[in-house]
Amino acid sequence: MTRFFSSKYDRLVPYTPGEQPKDAEYVKLNTNESPFAPTEKVVAAAAREAARLHLYPAPEPKALCEKFALSVGVKPEQVIATNGSDEILNFAFAAFCDGSHPAVFPDITYGFYEVFANALCVPYETIPLRDDFTISVDDYTGVGKTVFIANPNAPTGIALPLSDIERIVASNPGNVVVIDEAYVDFGARSASSLVSKYDNLLVTQTFSKSRSMAGARLGFGIASEGLIADLNTLKYSTNPYNVNRMTQAAGAAVLDEPEVFAKNCGDIIKNREYLSSSLEGLGFTLTPSSANFVFAKHGAIGGERLYKELKARGVLVRHFGGERIKDFCRITVGSRRQIDVLLEKIKEIQEAIL
Amino acid sequence: MTRFFSSKYDRLVPYTPGEQPKDAEYVKLNTNESPFAPTEKVVAAAAREAARLHLYPAPEPKALCEKFALSVGVKPEQVIATNGSDEILNFAFAAFCDGSHPAVFPDITYGFYEVFANALCVPYETIPLRDDFTISVDDYTGVGKTVFIANPNAPTGIALPLSDIERIVASNPGNVVVIDEAYVDFGARSASSLVSKYDNLLVTQTFSKSRSMAGARLGFGIASEGLIADLNTLKYSTNPYNVNRMTQAAGAAVLDEPEVFAKNCGDIIKNREYLSSSLEGLGFTLTPSSANFVFAKHGAIGGERLYKELKARGVLVRHFGGERIKDFCRITVGSRRQIDVLLEKIKEIQEAIL
Repeated sequence: MTRFFSSKYDRLVPYTPGEQPKDAEYVKLNTNESPFAPTEKVVAAAAREAARLHLYPAPEPKALCEKFALSVGVKPEQVIATNGSDEILNFAFAAFCDGSHPAVFPDITYGFYEVFANALCVPYETIPLRDDFTISVDDYTGVGKTVFIANPNAPTGIALPLSDIERIVASNPGNVVVIDEAYVDFGARSASSLVSKYDNLLVTQTFSKSRSMAGARLGFGIASEGLIADLNTLKYSTNPYNVNRMTQAAGAAVLDEPEVFAKNCGDIIKNREYLSSSLEGLGFTLTPSSANFVFAKHGAIGGERLYKELKARGVLVRHFGGERIKDFCRITVGSRRQIDVLLEKIKEIQEAIL
Repeated sequence: MTRFFSSKYDRLVPYTPGEQPKDAEYVKLNTNESPFAPTEKVVAAAAREAARLHLYPAPEPKALCEKFALSVGVKPEQVIATNGSDEILNFAFAAFCDGSHPAVFPDITYGFYEVFANALCVPYETIPLRDDFTISVDDYTGVGKTVFIANPNAPTGIALPLSDIERIVASNPGNVVVIDEAYVDFGARSASSLVSKYDNLLVTQTFSKSRSMAGARLGFGIASEGLIADLNTLKYSTNPYNVNRMTQAAGAAVLDEPEVFAKNCGDIIKNREYLSSSLEGLGFTLTPSSANFVFAKHGAIGGERLYKELKARGVLVRHFGGERIKDFCRITVGSRRQIDVLLEKIKEIQEAIL
């Protein structure tokens, strides 16, 4: 940190993205990417726009937002497109949190929430998950703070039913409730159906997981027209051309193939069941995941040890250091082939060290 | 503004990007884009990456940063890539401005500086340009604030010599000096040669103008390793995957064709001379531009009137409302064909209304 760096960041600890090593070919099950490449139509749509790169993208990607709004069942004025869902979450912390509206979120959740709050210098509180890593809904009803809940939650994969989400939203009419649905397409129900009923609800989604577009950076906010207008005020005060031409085109093309999306999500759910039961057979305990990852603890091998042993054998999974979750690894649900390599390596490790 | 929007934004007025109308085909000379489309190699590089969109981009685009650093003559650790140069400017206002380090910039400059400062709630001051729209260097020497200077300045196009920039940087060792070089490739000298000498200098550049990549969103910061580390702390606390895969690849491909870059810049400079002398012949007064736009005032037609008359005839230029510059229009230096259409329409307007 130089002497020039503002003292407001004295205690800021940046987010650590999942490792992207360049030194070897890994079976990468550590960043919850889709194992399915984009379709030919999506690639072609992006490539077509590449020929027009000398022209700015539309600051408001109208065609994309209209298609997305239609797919979600809301009006175009109820959505905003962003440079990944990290950007819409960042905007939400900036727009709706301050000294009078501290943020609140679970102690175990997407690690970036705490970083956003610190980087934006807004106060926040965390509420511990129950011992089984479920959210106690009563902790958030009428809490009078700006609520951030990932549904399904990360890295546990555990989803709340829509009725519980609605209870939280309805009981906090004076505060925004943000439901981060990065993983919703793998088995949870979206709260986007509620944004026309509650003016304090912001749903965020990403095209990085279920839509095979992590490399393109596309996220969305879905909310009342008023909240979207507030978020647009921030966008136009930060980076108006936030979504580039190629990504706008690729995103629109993805929305033109809902059958591919449905099949990919279905395959991930099938693979998750296979991965989960196989891991249980190998002595793991798992949380009930509705996401494209599982959160798994081996009966005899610690989380960090397992992560390291797998990495040494060419398989990357994610291990988090927090006290309550240090025995676990988060493992992306990849292709059947990737899962079989993982299972084989786990058997090797068991034979070698137990 | 909803009741949820933080009161810290009560006076925030967002930036207004140049209009991108959809209702007609315009000769677009209002957003300083390049008239030259990307080359086949650039398009192909972006298209190749589109096939891998399901995988996250590298949070640190190593290959791209190495190539860019080489082209600028600094170490890779002295550069950071961002989602357009608006993002690096936003990071700079966040990182290096606060109550103890207010921002300072000219009263007439890139309009976004004021918006960044307001959106980030940091104090700022403006210093009037001289009557001829030049910067008085003495106003910034030893000023003891975080300095933002666009060189060449916008929308005037007037450049400062490198010796003046160095004087400002050297005289403010306790504060960061940001030199925004969005337009530097069209006739000014870059201060990037000074970043190894001064630890308080941050140079920002963009690929939107001279590199034909406005649609891809790519900007850079160039500075001492310490400042770049600070800026990376903010990036990893905001949006680690800020530059998408296709843009990383397109940017690297652009850097592989320096001869195209040099030719395009040379053509713009030639076209600027043609445009300038033609406008003078039609009764305009111009500031001496080193950018890919001219700033021009007609002797008898007001700036807003000219803008509107041109728009009615299918030519878009940019008019700004500020008191000191309301008689001017900012006109992008386009292709010869675009310039000739512009000149013809101006003659039509003169005949119609004078």
